[in-house]
Amino acid sequence: MSSITAASQSPQQQQVKRILEGVEDEHGGVIVEMTKEPLDASLFTSLLHSSISDWKRQGKKGVWIKLPIELVNLVEPAVKAGFYFHHAEPSYLMLVHWLPVVANTLPANASHRVGIGAFVMNDNDEVLVVQEKSGKFRGTGVWKFPTGVVDEGEDICDAAVREVKEETGVDAKFVEVLAFRQSHKSFFDKSDLFFVCMLQPLSFEIQPQEAEIEAAQWMPFEEYSAQPMVQKNQLFQYVSKVCLAKKHRQYAGFVPVPVGSDPLGQETYYVYLNRQSLSGY
Amino acid sequence: MSSITAASQSPQQQQVKRILEGVEDEHGGVIVEMTKEPLDASLFTSLLHSSISDWKRQGKKGVWIKLPIELVNLVEPAVKAGFYFHHAEPSYLMLVHWLPVVANTLPANASHRVGIGAFVMNDNDEVLVVQEKSGKFRGTGVWKFPTGVVDEGEDICDAAVREVKEETGVDAKFVEVLAFRQSHKSFFDKSDLFFVCMLQPLSFEIQPQEAEIEAAQWMPFEEYSAQPMVQKNQLFQYVSKVCLAKKHRQYAGFVPVPVGSDPLGQETYYVYLNRQSLSGY
Repeated sequence: MSSITAASQSPQQQQVKRILEGVEDEHGGVIVEMTKEPLDASLFTSLLHSSISDWKRQGKKGVWIKLPIELVNLVEPAVKAGFYFHHAEPSYLMLVHWLPVVANTLPANASHRVGIGAFVMNDNDEVLVVQEKSGKFRGTGVWKFPTGVVDEGEDICDAAVREVKEETGVDAKFVEVLAFRQSHKSFFDKSDLFFVCMLQPLSFEIQPQEAEIEAAQWMPFEEYSAQPMVQKNQLFQYVSKVCLAKKHRQYAGFVPVPVGSDPLGQETYYVYLNRQSLSGY
Repeated sequence: MSSITAASQSPQQQQVKRILEGVEDEHGGVIVEMTKEPLDASLFTSLLHSSISDWKRQGKKGVWIKLPIELVNLVEPAVKAGFYFHHAEPSYLMLVHWLPVVANTLPANASHRVGIGAFVMNDNDEVLVVQEKSGKFRGTGVWKFPTGVVDEGEDICDAAVREVKEETGVDAKFVEVLAFRQSHKSFFDKSDLFFVCMLQPLSFEIQPQEAEIEAAQWMPFEEYSAQPMVQKNQLFQYVSKVCLAKKHRQYAGFVPVPVGSDPLGQETYYVYLNRQSLSGY
């Protein structure tokens, strides 16, 4: 994407080119991605005003300004010019301004965090469990499945394999999503999607992750599911039932099937579905 | 949550109470939620410095400051004091500062947007389809399932019912999640989870939504799935196979089952699972 032209030019040139440069998006809007080069707040304000006039004349709708944190001095001028916050990451703030008089149809910000829990069972019907060093089960003696957060840009199936390896040292192969839970206001106002995944272990020696895991072990499934924490919690009870049914090969979850690719044609996306039910189609 | 005390007091009182007030979180951190009351940037800077010294002395880890957009003048002072952006919504910016020397274990921001597509079929094996006024299928003549974005705090099953009603005027009952797809970099750097849902229609008269929908109709399923757009796209082909299997009552998706409640005990969460496989457990 383009950045501002004026900032890298002499004051004389700026008299000539007084508009923020942006690229057009697919929805009749403009995206201005500022470089980290220092820019004076009052110069930015004047650029912004003339740019907004220009964009309005051109009938532009949503105007986006991506400000790197190095240009934090420009946040206040942008808001004073009518922009508001859309989203932020550690290194930048995305501001947006809806120019038309008609109702705002700008896309919403990301709303969900995504997590996984891993059901990993060996041939002796023992399940891989951990005790965590922090979180709500810390110091309770509760043994739970390895869990973790899916990183931005990471596939759910890859995240499950990674978390099991990180927390326990066990290599495992992704099998399927057994169930998922959606919850709300899990972190500030954001929602949460938690996928319970089944993995097949490929190695069995345990090496607990020092930073996060107090202990890890292979535990008989019955012993895991008899824990009061599992018995008292509706979600854990369902998960336990699903795992038991899976253990008896009587449960069909959703398996990842690769489809299509990303806009650059470099990545595979997964659709997760009940492939077992699809034989013959 | 608490706000700053000093701001609402006279200069004399501020000499006495020179610390930003926050509430402690569960992870050894502090959350400062600023009110909208105007606050001078230099006063804020001095409050911030004495507060940080205090928090460090107390061994605090992550310090959060939630700034309403009305206090945009305080963004620059906060960043200069060592804070960086965590996330933002239209009305506020959340900044965070990790005080300890040891590695940062702050939680990540929301990473995914969540959407739904609705498969709604009547007793004549006709499926509910729409043509959109915007987006990539605009003007192509393609008929597609109603789709939409799941709002923050909204259950997937409710979002599907809402979108079908909004786009077509048809009342429908949620049946199950048939499949889902995860994709990346769908919107800036965020990922996307798209749930294909089956709904049972409760009314049949169509009233297309004026703002977004060009046309809507009940279309024979075979006609829908014979469209080149469906034939050429791997995801749509899978979805079409799943719907066909479902039509023949040979596909088991994930149904929502209510569990537990939110931290305030007021809401029901849903776990989505293959209940059909669970009979007898």
